[in-house]
Amino acid sequence: MNGLEQSLKSASDHAADPGFQSLPPANDASVASDRGVRSVEARLLRRLLGFLGDPPFEFVLWNGERITTSRGEIIARVRIRDRATLLGLLTDTQVRFGDAYSEGRVEVDGDLVAFLEAVYRSGASAGQKGAVFRRIQEWLHRPRSNTLAGSRENIHHHYDIGNEFYSLWLGRTMAYTCAYYPTPDATLDEAQEAKMHHVCRKLRLRPGESVVEAGCGWGGLALHMARHYGVKVRAFNISKEQIAYARERAKAEGLAGQVEFIEDDYRNISGRYDAFVSVGMLEHVGVANYPELGRVIHRCLPSHGRGLIHTIGRNAPARLHPWIERRIFPGAEPPSLAQMMQIFEPWNFSILDVENIRLHYAQTLRHWKELFEASSDRVRQMFDEKFVRMWRLYLAGSIAAFTTGSLQLFQVVFAPQSNNDVPWTRAYLYQD
Amino acid sequence: MNGLEQSLKSASDHAADPGFQSLPPANDASVASDRGVRSVEARLLRRLLGFLGDPPFEFVLWNGERITTSRGEIIARVRIRDRATLLGLLTDTQVRFGDAYSEGRVEVDGDLVAFLEAVYRSGASAGQKGAVFRRIQEWLHRPRSNTLAGSRENIHHHYDIGNEFYSLWLGRTMAYTCAYYPTPDATLDEAQEAKMHHVCRKLRLRPGESVVEAGCGWGGLALHMARHYGVKVRAFNISKEQIAYARERAKAEGLAGQVEFIEDDYRNISGRYDAFVSVGMLEHVGVANYPELGRVIHRCLPSHGRGLIHTIGRNAPARLHPWIERRIFPGAEPPSLAQMMQIFEPWNFSILDVENIRLHYAQTLRHWKELFEASSDRVRQMFDEKFVRMWRLYLAGSIAAFTTGSLQLFQVVFAPQSNNDVPWTRAYLYQD
Repeated sequence: MNGLEQSLKSASDHAADPGFQSLPPANDASVASDRGVRSVEARLLRRLLGFLGDPPFEFVLWNGERITTSRGEIIARVRIRDRATLLGLLTDTQVRFGDAYSEGRVEVDGDLVAFLEAVYRSGASAGQKGAVFRRIQEWLHRPRSNTLAGSRENIHHHYDIGNEFYSLWLGRTMAYTCAYYPTPDATLDEAQEAKMHHVCRKLRLRPGESVVEAGCGWGGLALHMARHYGVKVRAFNISKEQIAYARERAKAEGLAGQVEFIEDDYRNISGRYDAFVSVGMLEHVGVANYPELGRVIHRCLPSHGRGLIHTIGRNAPARLHPWIERRIFPGAEPPSLAQMMQIFEPWNFSILDVENIRLHYAQTLRHWKELFEASSDRVRQMFDEKFVRMWRLYLAGSIAAFTTGSLQLFQVVFAPQSNNDVPWTRAYLYQD
Repeated sequence: MNGLEQSLKSASDHAADPGFQSLPPANDASVASDRGVRSVEARLLRRLLGFLGDPPFEFVLWNGERITTSRGEIIARVRIRDRATLLGLLTDTQVRFGDAYSEGRVEVDGDLVAFLEAVYRSGASAGQKGAVFRRIQEWLHRPRSNTLAGSRENIHHHYDIGNEFYSLWLGRTMAYTCAYYPTPDATLDEAQEAKMHHVCRKLRLRPGESVVEAGCGWGGLALHMARHYGVKVRAFNISKEQIAYARERAKAEGLAGQVEFIEDDYRNISGRYDAFVSVGMLEHVGVANYPELGRVIHRCLPSHGRGLIHTIGRNAPARLHPWIERRIFPGAEPPSLAQMMQIFEPWNFSILDVENIRLHYAQTLRHWKELFEASSDRVRQMFDEKFVRMWRLYLAGSIAAFTTGSLQLFQVVFAPQSNNDVPWTRAYLYQD
């Protein structure tokens, strides 16, 4: 058993400890070690907790020192393995925490999602000190640029790590975007199917129409549109592995004549189409490129056209969590609605409908995480323990971001200004 | 019969002419007078038509000269009574057209709405020349400011001209905002009732809750909320006449204990409420005051709160038509969605739902215009012929603005970021 495995064992022992949830608050005599701490590190850590808005955590240092600033119930115990890790956390909390967690140098006892939710909530409620702290961190971690070459590299980093890996936990549809749960007890596969129908019905696809898809993932939506709505689809994606997989699927389903998968950037879309759709690509476009995306959409939609963009978003402009941006999604930048409007306003597109289904993304992520955990042995074989922990943190952190409202999920339906062939009400979406 | 009445008689004779719709196109020999026109005025008018994108109109001058630049079918004939009117049109088209039409110095033969729709479409498709022209006009006609005193004056101008006047054509509900037609054949009163239910259901009002309404008109929605949803309402409005009317209604319906009408500015709203609602006020707030409105909403909504703003909007920032802004709605400024976000983003409100029902506003206005025309004799008695023509132009122009997509109607539902007690899907809005 190496150090990392020992640390993990210790963590799971703690997680199983039935007494953990009833840990007494910090002002109880039993955690008196919190007072009168002497080490410099402990004092710095208290400072950091102050910056973070005094979340309900207890830190346990390598020397046994316990630190908390919370006056209420503690929901998680964070064990820090050594002085170097702590100093890293103190200089660049967000990125170093993720890295240290991945490497087992930080351990979280308790519910990881609940812990991360508290982190997000603390960040949201932290005062001016926290805001300054966050701004410095944001400056440190500007996202990577999404030039044509930059995008290719950024997308390759995340989406080309192996179709087999993704097939372990994305479910049957291989849709790697927020699902739509008609009822909260729907299964992941049902909800992904429902999402695709929801998108197609919002676009009111009719047999014989043409659709262009920007960022098609493994091709699930493109094939769904062809199969159920009788449309012709040209689907663009710059992920080599995804396009290869999508083409195989099209062939296997006999839809290769109806769906064309094109390994190219959305900026190179040509032709005219009845509908434009993009599900889960905008996060990777970068706000600086929205005017260009708007130009592409304007070019490809006739006056009777309509479009839908499904994207992770924000309540206000903010950088993506820098650890996620650095280790998971380089170049990613979820927009606020005002930022999104930079796509539409220059061309006078009418926004017809915006739906925010962020709680559905939390649910989707819970389902993904369950499948991921059930396959973690296989993932460890394919990669290593660090990879498993990194993805666990990413999935848990994403759940927390959506449940706390740090991230939103917007579906935006739009049409050229002169298009009056729009649904009279939205009732049809909820009938049949 | 005075000159104006003669001109009107002539107009209605033309409108009734069954041959009008089959007027031959301008390149037909029968309108050869269009070629070889000699007067300076006629040449300037051709120039103006070019600026406007060559709409399908024929102009007829006081001296019988006919001018058109359209190559297709003519949909309206515009008669200009004298040289001074034409020169006015050439210097400040938008404001002078409205004034000249009101005064009977310009007459439009044909369908007034179709004519104005063509004007809007020409404006939208006019090239760079048109854009420069529009920008100059916009600069000439900046909206009046909405300081506390300015707002009072602006609102008084439009809403305090007499409750009896409005009662002639707004229908039973006295709602002076876009209705919601569950089906296109619903009546005005049915659609106004449906709109109020739609708003209340989007807000998910529960008995015993408290609601603050900013800009309550004649009190219809406030009373509806109290009557059907069992909530307590504090409703703000700076229109003296409307507030007086609303208080009478509350007393008559026995709801005075449940609904408090307050003659005050939205900026003076105090207290905390479960819901914030504003239907048809934002148009009068002015974009410059959005941060202040956001502050007010933030101040009055607890973390479980939610809000709805229903407003005329734009696909992109643009001034309101300057004649409308000057003669009808001083200070009015319908926002683009990006502009609206200046209310929400500083406070991290989550946008949950945006619905655009602009075609419902065209339908609402058609119903208002029908009732208005049916009461035009009474309106003429109350005011004068000029007033009747001014309001006819305003209502017809508004229909055209909504059918051509020059104006939008947004209902925006929002909640504080941490509120997870939001509807799981929107299906409930379309059930029962």
